[in-house]
Amino acid sequence: MHKVVDVELGVDILAANKRIAEENADVLKGHGITSFDFVGSIGSGKTLIIEAIIEELKKRPGKGPKVACIAGDVAGDDDYRRFKKHKVMAENLNTEKECHLDAHLVSHALEHMDLKNIDVLFIENVGNLVCPTDFPLGAQKRVLVISVTEGDDMVRKHPLIFRLSDIIVINKVDLAKIMEVDPKGLVKDVRKVRPDAKVFMTDARHGTGIKELMKAMGL
Amino acid sequence: MHKVVDVELGVDILAANKRIAEENADVLKGHGITSFDFVGSIGSGKTLIIEAIIEELKKRPGKGPKVACIAGDVAGDDDYRRFKKHKVMAENLNTEKECHLDAHLVSHALEHMDLKNIDVLFIENVGNLVCPTDFPLGAQKRVLVISVTEGDDMVRKHPLIFRLSDIIVINKVDLAKIMEVDPKGLVKDVRKVRPDAKVFMTDARHGTGIKELMKAMGL
Repeated sequence: MHKVVDVELGVDILAANKRIAEENADVLKGHGITSFDFVGSIGSGKTLIIEAIIEELKKRPGKGPKVACIAGDVAGDDDYRRFKKHKVMAENLNTEKECHLDAHLVSHALEHMDLKNIDVLFIENVGNLVCPTDFPLGAQKRVLVISVTEGDDMVRKHPLIFRLSDIIVINKVDLAKIMEVDPKGLVKDVRKVRPDAKVFMTDARHGTGIKELMKAMGL
Repeated sequence: MHKVVDVELGVDILAANKRIAEENADVLKGHGITSFDFVGSIGSGKTLIIEAIIEELKKRPGKGPKVACIAGDVAGDDDYRRFKKHKVMAENLNTEKECHLDAHLVSHALEHMDLKNIDVLFIENVGNLVCPTDFPLGAQKRVLVISVTEGDDMVRKHPLIFRLSDIIVINKVDLAKIMEVDPKGLVKDVRKVRPDAKVFMTDARHGTGIKELMKAMGL
């Protein structure tokens, strides 16, 4: 019986989330902010990729666009502190027990931020390949980061989040050989669930593939 | 408002899950089955560790105890097929959209299994460090598998599941140096949230640490 209740409540929460996500999208658009929702499992490299992009943007004339980050995690402020080191605006969002950010949490984070002084916003979701799937946050594009250390079967295990992401990044490709995982096999699996997906290979630790990814993100 | 509804329903579901978990525990105990709930993020090495334990058990006189596995995943049957290759009894449990197994799903899997012919049961939960936390399944012990590829901050980000696991395994220690992660730092973080935890280091790909882990599991 609890299953039925769960589903009905689920629909209401998803509808409410969608409405608030649209409001967030309007707020961000109204301020001319380019925004991204980064999703992916823990350790896939979301934070490091965002950090690499921030450093690339800083190299541009006039120090580049003004960047802000929202660091979403169940607990702690490790990612928040990493972003602050790059001298960008940052907000820490702890979900406590929730396994994903939602549009409502993000809307409160946006209230604390000086939106007039932001050109590009990175929202880093909780490390999880299941729960964030159905919760759009209002960002313009969703970037899904997976890594070769997650095994060669991970696309088959989590097809839905691949369908609902705009850009897919396969990170840590430098470890592919030692992990005995073929990144091309991952790309093939991605193509099965998302034939039109933009897929990029990166090695964020050494900066490989970041510029190509940024181009796809319109940065 | 939806937050209040969520919490109230949550408590009911958790209470119902706990009750069914106790029923599962009784069923397993009644059949003299030693049982384990393996939790951990995707790619941490849960399946490989269970496979390594199965092969170790097979070396025993009389081919060792009779093993069964329940492979929990959102989608697909990759892990189920891996278990079947070891000629053990196996059930595939797809949660479809749910981010964790629950006691109710496991009770149905148990209905399909020949419990009289099982000595040791491994239940492999969905790859997720948040959602399985509050859902005991009825297994005697919970084994949490993390890996050095998940970053040096992962304990701080997910303290709760460490508190609610009996045995903690740090896997892929052979990659610690290349990942620039110090396993001792992870152990230190684990000790902060669980001073009494049994912590083991393994490299399941090369069989390192498996026997020590089995001893702690009473196998």
